[in-house]
Amino acid sequence: MSQQNSREIVLQRVGGEGSRSVADVLAVEEPLEIRLGYTREGKREQRSLSITMRTPGDDFDLAVGFLFTEGILRASAQIAGLRYCGVPAPDTGLRNVVRLDLTPDVVVDLKRMERHFYTTSSCGVCGKTSLEALEMAGCPAPLPSTFRVPACIIPKLPAALRSVQECFDRTGGLHAAALFDTEGSLLRVREDVGRHNALDKLIGSYLREEAVPLADRILLVSGRASFELMQKALMAGIPILAAVGAPSSLAVELAQRFNVTLLGFVREDRFNIYHGAERIETANVSSAA
Amino acid sequence: MSQQNSREIVLQRVGGEGSRSVADVLAVEEPLEIRLGYTREGKREQRSLSITMRTPGDDFDLAVGFLFTEGILRASAQIAGLRYCGVPAPDTGLRNVVRLDLTPDVVVDLKRMERHFYTTSSCGVCGKTSLEALEMAGCPAPLPSTFRVPACIIPKLPAALRSVQECFDRTGGLHAAALFDTEGSLLRVREDVGRHNALDKLIGSYLREEAVPLADRILLVSGRASFELMQKALMAGIPILAAVGAPSSLAVELAQRFNVTLLGFVREDRFNIYHGAERIETANVSSAA
Repeated sequence: MSQQNSREIVLQRVGGEGSRSVADVLAVEEPLEIRLGYTREGKREQRSLSITMRTPGDDFDLAVGFLFTEGILRASAQIAGLRYCGVPAPDTGLRNVVRLDLTPDVVVDLKRMERHFYTTSSCGVCGKTSLEALEMAGCPAPLPSTFRVPACIIPKLPAALRSVQECFDRTGGLHAAALFDTEGSLLRVREDVGRHNALDKLIGSYLREEAVPLADRILLVSGRASFELMQKALMAGIPILAAVGAPSSLAVELAQRFNVTLLGFVREDRFNIYHGAERIETANVSSAA
Repeated sequence: MSQQNSREIVLQRVGGEGSRSVADVLAVEEPLEIRLGYTREGKREQRSLSITMRTPGDDFDLAVGFLFTEGILRASAQIAGLRYCGVPAPDTGLRNVVRLDLTPDVVVDLKRMERHFYTTSSCGVCGKTSLEALEMAGCPAPLPSTFRVPACIIPKLPAALRSVQECFDRTGGLHAAALFDTEGSLLRVREDVGRHNALDKLIGSYLREEAVPLADRILLVSGRASFELMQKALMAGIPILAAVGAPSSLAVELAQRFNVTLLGFVREDRFNIYHGAERIETANVSSAA
């Protein structure tokens, strides 16, 4: 973790032996404003779309991933410009405003933007309408089922993520999103205080390399599987999402409707399949029977 | 946990002995739309303010807590009406739209609302401006320091929360926010798939009883301490926030600026004090020395 992502602090540690001062490290949380430049009725306009609390680093990936998973940006070829705006924050020196300019041919649906940006995670007034909105946004339904992985690689994913996080995360305060190939090899990790940001950074980094959809990849998230994370994975075409924690009801409904393989409570010796078992070759699990 | 908060599912559990079907329970996640009715230039208007993914239950508390911690609603006396709108969702029977009407005397700052609702957690383009925005929203700075608790009660808080969650949370998918008195007795718990929602439900329930500010109380949150959670606790005037996980850099800065006692990594035998140690009487910790 680079210096801008963590900050040293002296705190009081209270325990059975009393209280003492110790040095420790915090995960940095700072706001990032994302501005969009676009063409409407032949005129250039700009708009502040989002202010999100994020851990500095990979800001361009975050902006690109956010605009892509919200359905505004469709491909890296639509990016005409991507840069920091304004001056560095006087207290930290951080650049906290990113502007992405779309090419003139991109038609932006302003109503859709307003509806989406009231909060980060929703697009309807019940679970069913939320799922329908994803179809309208162009999500493939259902995802093809031809992709398969042996079950034996799944329980090893969290340890592979931790082995990288041990280097980066001294703070205990960061979520992670990690992409793996079909053999369980770790390809890329992104971290953030916000789990949705970690995933946007990961997806944005691949979009900028024109490597989306990620049709033959496995996504591991460090926490629980919510609708929001499933929505982002679906936009990126990722067929398997594995979570260290529990999924929500709407995450499972999304998995069923769009045929995403959803795995939860992934541990060293077991995991749960909530949907899409046909992509997991369970015969490869070593059997005690 | 009532039926509307959890849902049964059959999943595949994969382990060393192979794969088998098991029944399990999911935490329900469904969108909630919050609409605001208000008076502007003598005319009644209404506006959809937020769509948030939440666990059904305590929806009125959530709406009240959200509008209060965002600085739009100041006291329960400003609530002229609070009700569900529209018809139940056809698939689940859930009511997913809550409308809160403000009394005619309340002046609503629409620009402030727009700035706030781009995302749930921020109000500026750097940490410093984010903290300044809280002062402008009327947060007390600094909180008085007269309130004190013995250190020995802090490590017992998570176990007290878990003892209640064992009854309610069979899903593993819920965050919790819990309020304690100065002796460490658990007063009230609220749960949700979103940790900000759990805290809004808790604060909203007290606001509706005209019991805010919560000046002699301790708040425990099940996860990490972010800027967003600290902001909400500050709006409710809670002097001590204890988190099971790590705080972020901006959470610590907020604690310093507003003199909130911030505790993190609360375990059975120890905890960290990031700011506000004067409210924690560490002499009461049993000493091994």
